[in-house]
Amino acid sequence: MRTVDIIEKKRDGGKLTQEEISFFIQGYTKGTIPDYQASALLMAILFQGMDDEETAELTDAMRLSGEQVDLSRIQGVKVDKHSTGGVGDKTSLVLGPLVASCGAKLAKMSGRGLGHTGGTLDKMESIPGMRIDLSEEEFIKQVNDIGIAIIGQTADIDPADKKLYALRDVTGTVESIPLIASSIMSKKLCSGANAILLDVKFGSGAFMKTLDKAKELATTMVKIGDHLHRDTRAILTDMDEPLGLAVGNALEVKEAIATLKGEGPKDLTELVIKAGGIMLEQAKLVKTHEEGETKIKEAIANGAGLSKLKQMVASQSGDVSYIDDPTKFPLAQHIVEIKANQDGYIQRIDSLGIGVSAMKLGAGRATKEDSIDMAAGIVLAKKVGDYVVKGETLALAHTNKDDYEAVLTDIFHAFVLGEEKQAERPIVYGYIK
Amino acid sequence: MRTVDIIEKKRDGGKLTQEEISFFIQGYTKGTIPDYQASALLMAILFQGMDDEETAELTDAMRLSGEQVDLSRIQGVKVDKHSTGGVGDKTSLVLGPLVASCGAKLAKMSGRGLGHTGGTLDKMESIPGMRIDLSEEEFIKQVNDIGIAIIGQTADIDPADKKLYALRDVTGTVESIPLIASSIMSKKLCSGANAILLDVKFGSGAFMKTLDKAKELATTMVKIGDHLHRDTRAILTDMDEPLGLAVGNALEVKEAIATLKGEGPKDLTELVIKAGGIMLEQAKLVKTHEEGETKIKEAIANGAGLSKLKQMVASQSGDVSYIDDPTKFPLAQHIVEIKANQDGYIQRIDSLGIGVSAMKLGAGRATKEDSIDMAAGIVLAKKVGDYVVKGETLALAHTNKDDYEAVLTDIFHAFVLGEEKQAERPIVYGYIK
Repeated sequence: MRTVDIIEKKRDGGKLTQEEISFFIQGYTKGTIPDYQASALLMAILFQGMDDEETAELTDAMRLSGEQVDLSRIQGVKVDKHSTGGVGDKTSLVLGPLVASCGAKLAKMSGRGLGHTGGTLDKMESIPGMRIDLSEEEFIKQVNDIGIAIIGQTADIDPADKKLYALRDVTGTVESIPLIASSIMSKKLCSGANAILLDVKFGSGAFMKTLDKAKELATTMVKIGDHLHRDTRAILTDMDEPLGLAVGNALEVKEAIATLKGEGPKDLTELVIKAGGIMLEQAKLVKTHEEGETKIKEAIANGAGLSKLKQMVASQSGDVSYIDDPTKFPLAQHIVEIKANQDGYIQRIDSLGIGVSAMKLGAGRATKEDSIDMAAGIVLAKKVGDYVVKGETLALAHTNKDDYEAVLTDIFHAFVLGEEKQAERPIVYGYIK
Repeated sequence: MRTVDIIEKKRDGGKLTQEEISFFIQGYTKGTIPDYQASALLMAILFQGMDDEETAELTDAMRLSGEQVDLSRIQGVKVDKHSTGGVGDKTSLVLGPLVASCGAKLAKMSGRGLGHTGGTLDKMESIPGMRIDLSEEEFIKQVNDIGIAIIGQTADIDPADKKLYALRDVTGTVESIPLIASSIMSKKLCSGANAILLDVKFGSGAFMKTLDKAKELATTMVKIGDHLHRDTRAILTDMDEPLGLAVGNALEVKEAIATLKGEGPKDLTELVIKAGGIMLEQAKLVKTHEEGETKIKEAIANGAGLSKLKQMVASQSGDVSYIDDPTKFPLAQHIVEIKANQDGYIQRIDSLGIGVSAMKLGAGRATKEDSIDMAAGIVLAKKVGDYVVKGETLALAHTNKDDYEAVLTDIFHAFVLGEEKQAERPIVYGYIK
């Protein structure tokens, strides 16, 4: 088999076979197929697309390029959840304890990755003592004992994706649905879960800018799951403003705790109820996701979710007193108000602008080597649809840096004001299964 | 400027600026832009195309990537001719002396390249003593003195094309008109000629399989020449059978000599008359190409072309006695007949099959390191439209190898016989200026 023949076949609109896709992924991972042939094939895929079968084969070949996480020693249906990434997305820290408190098994391994704010692992590390480096034995035992563990990735999973992702980034081959879908799904499939719920975000702050594009990506990923025999479903959620009010690591943990107490922001609460309902149905603990939603609401109301979070923190050596009394989380040196300079309704809050600003205040990494300031971030005082009068606070910037002035202006400009009140929008726009 | 932005612009159908194209070609030639970005851009160009201006800018940037040949010390209009490559194409060896004998200046530097048979340089080297390594001084003096010199490329011209060509070959990005056109034209423009005649071949034995594709390529190249202020014209010629009868180095030189004597095959003779007429018009030696054709016919009839070939051979230290008596060229050890096994009209002679067979008999190089057997090759006994009876000779195989049996079968299969007589076809199908 010659790589150039595979490239030309795809270039001319042909359908690649499982053998051709495996040959390419194995060769590229081993380094026998060079980057320049890989990038030519990626560009041909971008133009010609891949059908459902090809996309599933690509995903499976990528999955098989590295180690697999074996969760077979955990009893029951293992559920997992993946978000395509949004600003202020602390969903896992709320949803995980809630579904576990209802009897689902959540054995989650997270990567760190770059981002405007830290990932789930970074957020967890804002709780003093919290270990994310459990051994496989400890990890499995904890999930069997209390139903939930969230730890860092240890296995060398999906090296094909790591290489391809880096290559796509510099060769203009990121924006291809089959490539995006296979990248996300191959990693997820390595994690060993039986059922996966995907949270595909759309809007200005998300990778998919429109609902249609998000639906296309979600549908593709659900079909991959079907092909590879995992119960995969997806929800489509709005990211035209940050999720919740808090953006930044410790700030988001505090908001997650509040949400588990039933005191969280409306959009985040709605999201975890909808998503949790579906995950309980996937875990076969309820008959319908509506029934699951009721269970999740109960787990918020009766504190079962919060208890589960405390159990997890304790089991991973974290200081539980921070969950009991979130005022213990250290505050940043500077907490500065950003105020409205006119009256009006909030039309939109630019999520990307808020995310980048939070990073500049210290909440995220610009490069892998950067360290994160757990206290830094932004707390919104207003959301889309709210009315503000001139001089009222739009948001609070939390930072330990002294040169924050320019960032305040950026945050100010993220708020778009106007005369019309925006109609109330749901957080979840669609459900694909 | 970032390469990835250039790739994405072209991927999305944008028009690249002169600055972007130069940035890419310079960076790629120097090695600051890696192969994997170049191949992604090439694939995007293959899908999205380039308009006339972009194609001209790409050509010029490639031309400027290396040294230029300076022909300014040669008086008069310097004409050059380029063929897209065909089997049995010995045109330069006939056409060059003819136009030079009529007063045009032909200062030709040839590359070697791979091929089923050798290139023009290899063919010339079948004449004992022939030097193709003249110094620049000798080269210019010879053209000023006798009007013609054909030598090997010494200058490091068009390194961008060398790199891109090698990359395209292994990344499925060969079949793109703007990339093919810029590759050919950038090299030609380095050679310093004022006027260029392109011989774009089409048919089973040519790179362009159809007349339409050949026309598209020719038109693109003529427009590049216009943009870059060179008098560029093109003829479209048939390659649905080999050109002339001889395929192989010394065999083709002998056919070139015969053609200069007026004893050449009909198709080759017609081609050099048509092409020569145009080149004399380009050299401003005649008012119309029809007038030029008359001059070329005269130069054949009165032996002026043959004299010019002898002058060139003598000036480049070749043994002129071989031109006077072509029977001096050594013959191969085995000269084997391939015979028809039925009666019929020749419908088609597969040029590619004949070319590959000639190479297998020793006439060409499979790899750069291979040496060429000057005596090896094939001489056709019949051309398309001819009638043969069973047992009559179709062709003669010339070889010094002993294991030629399989090749004979291939040559036999290159001849397609049928009951219908093919209508006589012109060799030149079109003229673009």
